[in-house]
Amino acid sequence: MSDSKESLLNTINDPSDLRRLNIEELPYVCDELRDFIIEQVANNPGHLGASLGVVELTVALHFSYNTPNDLLIWDVGHQAYGHKILTGRKDQFHTNRKYNGISGFPKPSESEYDSFGVGHSSTSISAALGMAVAAKQKKENRKIVAVIGDGAMTGGMAFEGLNNAAVNNSDVLIVLNDNNMAIDPIVGGVSNYLLNISKSKSYNRLKKDVWNALGRIYKVGRKTRRLVQKTEGAIKAAILKESNLFESLGIRYFGPVDGHDVVYLSKVLNDLKDIPGPKLLHIITKKGKGFKQAEINQTAFHAPGKFDKNTGEILDCECALNKPPKFQDVFGNTIVELAGKNEKIVGVTPAMPTGSSLNIMMEKMPDRAFDVGIAEQHAVTFSAGMAKQGLVPFCNIYSTFMQRSYDQVIHDVAIQNLNVVFCLDRGGLVGADGATHHGVFDIAYMRNIPNMTVAAPMDEIELRNLMYTAQQKNMGPFSIRYPRGCGCKVDWRKDFEPTEVGTGRTLTEGNDLAFLTIGTTGINASRAVKSLQKEGYNIAHYDMRFVKPFDEKLLHEVFKKIKKIITVEDGVIQGGFGSAVLEFMSENKYEAEIVRLGVPDRFIEHGTTDELQRECGFDQKGIYKAAIDLLSS
Amino acid sequence: MSDSKESLLNTINDPSDLRRLNIEELPYVCDELRDFIIEQVANNPGHLGASLGVVELTVALHFSYNTPNDLLIWDVGHQAYGHKILTGRKDQFHTNRKYNGISGFPKPSESEYDSFGVGHSSTSISAALGMAVAAKQKKENRKIVAVIGDGAMTGGMAFEGLNNAAVNNSDVLIVLNDNNMAIDPIVGGVSNYLLNISKSKSYNRLKKDVWNALGRIYKVGRKTRRLVQKTEGAIKAAILKESNLFESLGIRYFGPVDGHDVVYLSKVLNDLKDIPGPKLLHIITKKGKGFKQAEINQTAFHAPGKFDKNTGEILDCECALNKPPKFQDVFGNTIVELAGKNEKIVGVTPAMPTGSSLNIMMEKMPDRAFDVGIAEQHAVTFSAGMAKQGLVPFCNIYSTFMQRSYDQVIHDVAIQNLNVVFCLDRGGLVGADGATHHGVFDIAYMRNIPNMTVAAPMDEIELRNLMYTAQQKNMGPFSIRYPRGCGCKVDWRKDFEPTEVGTGRTLTEGNDLAFLTIGTTGINASRAVKSLQKEGYNIAHYDMRFVKPFDEKLLHEVFKKIKKIITVEDGVIQGGFGSAVLEFMSENKYEAEIVRLGVPDRFIEHGTTDELQRECGFDQKGIYKAAIDLLSS
Repeated sequence: MSDSKESLLNTINDPSDLRRLNIEELPYVCDELRDFIIEQVANNPGHLGASLGVVELTVALHFSYNTPNDLLIWDVGHQAYGHKILTGRKDQFHTNRKYNGISGFPKPSESEYDSFGVGHSSTSISAALGMAVAAKQKKENRKIVAVIGDGAMTGGMAFEGLNNAAVNNSDVLIVLNDNNMAIDPIVGGVSNYLLNISKSKSYNRLKKDVWNALGRIYKVGRKTRRLVQKTEGAIKAAILKESNLFESLGIRYFGPVDGHDVVYLSKVLNDLKDIPGPKLLHIITKKGKGFKQAEINQTAFHAPGKFDKNTGEILDCECALNKPPKFQDVFGNTIVELAGKNEKIVGVTPAMPTGSSLNIMMEKMPDRAFDVGIAEQHAVTFSAGMAKQGLVPFCNIYSTFMQRSYDQVIHDVAIQNLNVVFCLDRGGLVGADGATHHGVFDIAYMRNIPNMTVAAPMDEIELRNLMYTAQQKNMGPFSIRYPRGCGCKVDWRKDFEPTEVGTGRTLTEGNDLAFLTIGTTGINASRAVKSLQKEGYNIAHYDMRFVKPFDEKLLHEVFKKIKKIITVEDGVIQGGFGSAVLEFMSENKYEAEIVRLGVPDRFIEHGTTDELQRECGFDQKGIYKAAIDLLSS
Repeated sequence: MSDSKESLLNTINDPSDLRRLNIEELPYVCDELRDFIIEQVANNPGHLGASLGVVELTVALHFSYNTPNDLLIWDVGHQAYGHKILTGRKDQFHTNRKYNGISGFPKPSESEYDSFGVGHSSTSISAALGMAVAAKQKKENRKIVAVIGDGAMTGGMAFEGLNNAAVNNSDVLIVLNDNNMAIDPIVGGVSNYLLNISKSKSYNRLKKDVWNALGRIYKVGRKTRRLVQKTEGAIKAAILKESNLFESLGIRYFGPVDGHDVVYLSKVLNDLKDIPGPKLLHIITKKGKGFKQAEINQTAFHAPGKFDKNTGEILDCECALNKPPKFQDVFGNTIVELAGKNEKIVGVTPAMPTGSSLNIMMEKMPDRAFDVGIAEQHAVTFSAGMAKQGLVPFCNIYSTFMQRSYDQVIHDVAIQNLNVVFCLDRGGLVGADGATHHGVFDIAYMRNIPNMTVAAPMDEIELRNLMYTAQQKNMGPFSIRYPRGCGCKVDWRKDFEPTEVGTGRTLTEGNDLAFLTIGTTGINASRAVKSLQKEGYNIAHYDMRFVKPFDEKLLHEVFKKIKKIITVEDGVIQGGFGSAVLEFMSENKYEAEIVRLGVPDRFIEHGTTDELQRECGFDQKGIYKAAIDLLSS
């Protein structure tokens, strides 16, 4: 935007400043807000597309509603940058997602405007209903608005909320932000349905006129309102000539309206405040709106990393040529290789084809790779169904999202001992996404499940070999977790070698102290070992590879000769890998001093993974220090 | 049924025998099957109402489909008694739900006719879609049918499946068994919707005629079929004049039809076999059909225990006067008492008002107790929303079903440190419901979560006091687990006393050996203690009450003086309570021999809880034996 104009954005410290403006000024605020977001995210990577898509909605909501008394809940929350900037965090926004900076997601501890903590998808409707009940119970006069995308709407939890909205007759507005994209284009019946409804232009146009005409009547009185409702229903039925998902659930449906017309949107929202009961406003937006490259390549600009704000060139590709690959790409390429040899293999992802790199298989073997939408529960039981009939599904779900399908893993896969291979991407501390996204519970929650094999590779080659091993005959439920980001091996495309289940690897031998590591923590530990060796210590290091079944033979050898042991895991210490080592020791009546390193019993915030591992004490230095302390005890 | 008639049921050893009958004979088979179920369940308690409701559907499905090549998936599965009886298990049916007998749920290891293991709700559509993909992939010619109740349809997971059915265009039939009851009457938008659609009699009648007319055309050809589909859509729209939830998701909807007309139902099913793609047949049934008392009192006859098959009198009420109450009733009465004093308290149940006894509060305080339908995920986040705005929700979910909301507990409650009180009923081995329903994972999965208090009362009075404690100011997330069935105290209505969080109780002092118990395992242990004391041993027994935070003061005292310790828990040993004791010991550098008793690392089948605890070795005798072994080691 031109510098000659006076900045409106600079005058807005909180939404009350916004509400002092004339409605005609809102488009200018939107322009400035959009530029500010682009400028900021170009330099300090974060989620771009979603926030650009809701600039107008954000301004309209804070203009029309009396926040923070009225409560806004942003489903998922990575679209809330505009919200953060308008609610007193403009000057801190350069710290977005940085260690000790503001969070990339709404967070009540950060601001009273963040009415509910979010991060995972499809929670907003349930939370909004709860808040509406509380307001009623406490006789507080406040409006509650949930903003949910069409992608998040495919999550079963959103449906559970919708299903309950009608029966409680809660005074809640659900804004359905329909851009037909989550991160990747969304899939499923709901998506098709929304697309149809959005495309119905004649309906849209007529609806707008009717709405304008009706807008004034709404405030008249109860009887008139009922009449209007009837009329509107008939018009809808006549013009739309199709069923309405939401009205069949007893939720009044309004829309679709243009989500980039901030003035109109503000008026609509203002009118809707007077309509009691559960209602849904369907708005159509474009992900990445206002930044050409982001509009064109929505998936790449979901969270593009650093980019040139003028040209749109994406600048920092984490994993370049001659660098180790991302673990996800090792998965993505390896499943294609394996599937070429084993026709039983299929791939499943709940709405994360690019994040998991299953998109590679989806392109090459479209009949054998399934994106099931944001639907982790379904993803697992769908996999179970396939496995029951003899296929070998690789079900790839981020560790943090696998929490959503814990019951399905136990009830549908493990009890029946089905050969579903769970690939848990983003295992361990994930970095900038923070507390809601760290995949730190999986080792603990998986190892409790009978029949389940729990494995974690230290590097790319182990990942390949574990994947190869998992699809061998009658392996039962088999989970493989690996971290976000890149590994350490450039030359990773080796021939497959089966890994004997329940065997670890000896990396170094020694008598003074032993490291037992699982997964990529082995890399930190092996560096610490080198430092310790230089100081003359005789250090053993075992990459256990499997938390379950344990390499008992190896552990017996270790416990027989070494009395100081450090376990290292990128996961919660309570009940995790180290705890399993204690169980082995106790059951076999060994005695040893054991120090367990990992994620302590509190929620870890955002930062780089290096910063967070340091905070938790299992970075290279932390491991070294723990060893020195134990050696000198 | 009259003995003079020849029995048809006795001639049916498997469905191929059924398929040899004339369609006109099916009503007689249904009568006999119904009588057989009533007779059996009257003597050997199980789920009655659901199985009576689907007698005709069961016969029609096996008559029309080529089972076991065609695959039937019974959602939840407690309605599958008729299915079991028709598929070779008539003679074993008297062992239903008994130790080493057949399971009360379909179970693939038991019969090839049980195509998918079930128990928890809303899994069938996802599994069916997976199986359809497998059949396609493997070029197998088989039909797949999922039978799901209207209650199970409210689970978000069912919606995830529906949403995915359209996009995969899977050749799956979903039979929606609509009786407007789950265990308790079902709630929510879907329920209202189904009720409306079912009541539309004119539609129903006309639809039937149209159906009959069209039935013959279906086999004609593709073009005609398309025409028919169009016609049918128009008729539907014109007559029904309301939106159709399923068609908005791209699933062809047929119905509603009378689910007790076995001949008609068989014909309809036969016709539907030739219609490709995902389709839903909506049938209307009556829960308890054919047994008057069960039709009238559907909730009581869901699983009535023993009853008189002639009078319908329910015979064995587990907990009579002057006997200890059920834990659930202690919960149900106590929450009402507490809510009378603390206006912030509300109650939440996902479709288990009578099972949890929250129905007591629902009657007395209807505005403050919420049945949200089969929707555990929503139940937790709905509770989080209320807690965020200052209410204190008691969210009562069976331990096994809480697995469904693991992510919501972490992401929506614990990260925000909200004061939601989780009451986990049916914690531990539950008895006859078996592997799918044992609530054995919760201690392990809850104690990994930061901010979470994990408690388990040994008796009714502790349960009351823990509930009292949990609703005190700023308690954060607080989980209380207690078992199915009755406790041990007749005189349980004592005045409330706050329990200091993280404190255990000393039951007996001693030096030879210490029992650390959690929850009701303390009762078994205290009996074992008495036997051991009689033999002259000096035994200490501590009821820890909290797994987290631990009573560290008490544990320091114990470990300082006692070197033989047995932990006892009604839950998985891996990562559970005993594992937490090992962690304490290791962190504080104590040395002791520890034996951990609990549920071993395999799935435990059905039986009485006494039988199952014996199998796991933590019944009174098992505990005694473990102590003798450890004392003599």
